[in-house]
Amino acid sequence: MLTTGLPTRPVPRPREDPGLTARLARSAAESHGAHLRTEDFGRWLAARGRAHHFAVDRIPFAGLDGWSFQEDTGDLTHRSGRFFTVEGLSAATDEGPYPRWRQPIIVQPEVGILGILAKEFDGVLHFLMQAKMEPGNPNLLQLSPTVQATRSNYTKVHNGQDVKYLDYFVRPGRGRVVADTLQSEHGSWFYRKSNRNMLVEALDEVPLEDDFCWLTLGQINALLHRDLVVNMDARTVLSCVPDHDPGTSALHTDAELRSWFTGERSRRALRTERVPLASVPGWRRGDMSIDHEDGRYFKVVAVSVRADSREVSSWTQPLFEPVGTGITAFVARRFGGVLHVLAHARVEGGFLDTVELGPTVQCTPGNWDRLPPEHRPPFLDLVQDAGGRVRYEAVHSEEGGRFLNAESRTLVVETDRAPLDPPPGYRWVTPAQLRSLVRHGHYVNVQARTLLACLAAMGEDGR
Amino acid sequence: MLTTGLPTRPVPRPREDPGLTARLARSAAESHGAHLRTEDFGRWLAARGRAHHFAVDRIPFAGLDGWSFQEDTGDLTHRSGRFFTVEGLSAATDEGPYPRWRQPIIVQPEVGILGILAKEFDGVLHFLMQAKMEPGNPNLLQLSPTVQATRSNYTKVHNGQDVKYLDYFVRPGRGRVVADTLQSEHGSWFYRKSNRNMLVEALDEVPLEDDFCWLTLGQINALLHRDLVVNMDARTVLSCVPDHDPGTSALHTDAELRSWFTGERSRRALRTERVPLASVPGWRRGDMSIDHEDGRYFKVVAVSVRADSREVSSWTQPLFEPVGTGITAFVARRFGGVLHVLAHARVEGGFLDTVELGPTVQCTPGNWDRLPPEHRPPFLDLVQDAGGRVRYEAVHSEEGGRFLNAESRTLVVETDRAPLDPPPGYRWVTPAQLRSLVRHGHYVNVQARTLLACLAAMGEDGR
Repeated sequence: MLTTGLPTRPVPRPREDPGLTARLARSAAESHGAHLRTEDFGRWLAARGRAHHFAVDRIPFAGLDGWSFQEDTGDLTHRSGRFFTVEGLSAATDEGPYPRWRQPIIVQPEVGILGILAKEFDGVLHFLMQAKMEPGNPNLLQLSPTVQATRSNYTKVHNGQDVKYLDYFVRPGRGRVVADTLQSEHGSWFYRKSNRNMLVEALDEVPLEDDFCWLTLGQINALLHRDLVVNMDARTVLSCVPDHDPGTSALHTDAELRSWFTGERSRRALRTERVPLASVPGWRRGDMSIDHEDGRYFKVVAVSVRADSREVSSWTQPLFEPVGTGITAFVARRFGGVLHVLAHARVEGGFLDTVELGPTVQCTPGNWDRLPPEHRPPFLDLVQDAGGRVRYEAVHSEEGGRFLNAESRTLVVETDRAPLDPPPGYRWVTPAQLRSLVRHGHYVNVQARTLLACLAAMGEDGR
Repeated sequence: MLTTGLPTRPVPRPREDPGLTARLARSAAESHGAHLRTEDFGRWLAARGRAHHFAVDRIPFAGLDGWSFQEDTGDLTHRSGRFFTVEGLSAATDEGPYPRWRQPIIVQPEVGILGILAKEFDGVLHFLMQAKMEPGNPNLLQLSPTVQATRSNYTKVHNGQDVKYLDYFVRPGRGRVVADTLQSEHGSWFYRKSNRNMLVEALDEVPLEDDFCWLTLGQINALLHRDLVVNMDARTVLSCVPDHDPGTSALHTDAELRSWFTGERSRRALRTERVPLASVPGWRRGDMSIDHEDGRYFKVVAVSVRADSREVSSWTQPLFEPVGTGITAFVARRFGGVLHVLAHARVEGGFLDTVELGPTVQCTPGNWDRLPPEHRPPFLDLVQDAGGRVRYEAVHSEEGGRFLNAESRTLVVETDRAPLDPPPGYRWVTPAQLRSLVRHGHYVNVQARTLLACLAAMGEDGR
């Protein structure tokens, strides 16, 4: 080829990668990986656990290194001014048994990266997953994305080692982007936190580091049926994997669905204000924890961590510890053979913009047991009685870097007892419709994204 | 048909309305409407102007009825607590010649409705437009959407008459939704304001009220080439009209474009805080206006309005009056025959989430004339010298209910002098790609949405 010294004039290409969906479908159909057999995965994960020391102990707040309660506000902060802070949130909304409340909340105004690297082996896409220990995980070690890094991590605020494979996610052109969206985190515990959810295909040779393994989508889907194996960060990135079959029919057109969502976001009100943690009534600070006076919701606690497998070897930090096990469930029903799930437009205090679509049921039942029946979360009884066929059930936990033992029973219950005409704030949508919304941020909350990953694991991609 | 008394079990339908794009294309191709000829439009609009009295006068702040400056904060508020307030904004960002600033800003935390009703006549979609007078319009009377209502309007805070045709936009099922999204307003003048942009097709008979007319897309596109005829609210709703031809190729795939946008939103920082208007340095409050000490940016002024054509017949209100005429321009270039425009990921102080895509150039040149050359807005010289072919030019004004004489030269300049490889923060995108982002909120700012409507008027839908 003759080089002229002139820049190459770029040429338009198809707006959608034409072969992608077929390649994803092939990976989902492949239950045997080119590297690690699914039946060997448990042994591999256990071996990674034995290869590292990792001890987590509850400590009093006074034992935190670098963290302290501010004298004036009572906020819990790090002396560097980085990482995150625990502050107070004052919230007012327009509906429900608790239209006004104050609560502790995690403030972390920076965007982290949750990234999974993909690569073809023997013509099948594999995904690079990491065995990662996190202090809040009930079982410490779970399967995480290739990269799971706060901005503090990758700008080296805590003088840690380099984040492995980070380059693929921060250097444009290093790979081929499959998905990349800012998605919200838990709106009940985080103030307007979002992370960049990325899926990037590597086009070059990728060295395999310790603690990492290549798995097909089919293998990951099998692991999603196990309790406490695939961590939240991996689940939310997996929810962004495009549909194998986008499914072309639904009860409501996409335009109607977006219109309903716009109506819900316009109709509902949420006013929030960050306030000093010391000004939050009903919460008591002890030596070991900050608790709600009724013993409900969650506690703020502190832990010390000793590890040799993290970017730094030991540290202390606060964590939020929910009281009780949550329930996260989609009620599902078929219409004309097409599976639909009942999405709920939820207001959460920490959302950037009023509402996002959540599961049919998302609650900790114990928090609601003193309320009169009319205030019980809708469909909770339907899910708990499982007045239908439990199509999916597993226990998953939330982000182990911020939340301690935050477990939820995660369910998809298919039942003809679900109403054809749901109450205000609820809408029948197909998994494919939710997945097309997940291409954009702030539509689907993190719990519903977990369920989307689980629906894919059930084989309910597209229709 | 036998009615059984049982609810009808709903049946899935196609997720996209299959005939819609062809019907929109037909309306765009139709330069003669079934009701009003385009050549008669000017006379019709002038007649609507003569049919109503409408007088706007500048008044001192002391002449405002119900509006006053709060003693403690200096904020300008209405005694009802509704409508809007003028407060202070403190903003800090990460780039540019002014990384930190304070300014007056309009706070109106409620979602208005901008809605256009469509209906087929003789097999061609027509759009119901309103001749509407607004105090801030340089020529008072412009063509507005069918409905242009703040929440205060349609909840009757100012005891006005009913908003005509509102029912189609607030009662689900009254028509068929074509588009419905929350879109941002001016981020330099509004704090996190968004409006619901709706396009609804009526399926029943629609009575034609005074001041309203049915026009085809082809007719509206012709009017968009005239100065100061199609108002901002109409332009932003028109930008939400789906593409006639979605165009299947572009320099960057849609996934790459979303990834670049996500990267820009993650990379850029914006911290804002509402502060008392009295605490904003550099701005002076006189009897007749609040001005910047350099005479730049904008003024806050007050007007009295006498009208018989509005929901109420007379009122007083504050307005923002920009200093100087703005320039709003897309630089355009063809790649492989496909028109692309150079979008700019802009930080504006009032945005909900850091950046949105704006025009290549969006500024008031006079505000920048004391800055050294390296801080001049990129591509301003290219647009002002029109080092290319001016494909579109018209003067449009911004929302006349809040902004006084806010005029911008609105341009699309096609030129091969535009760089193949644009600087950071800029990206070549097709109009069709921008239009697919406008299906969702907070991607494309209001000035770029005006330009999208103008691109359609040029015939640059799809490719």
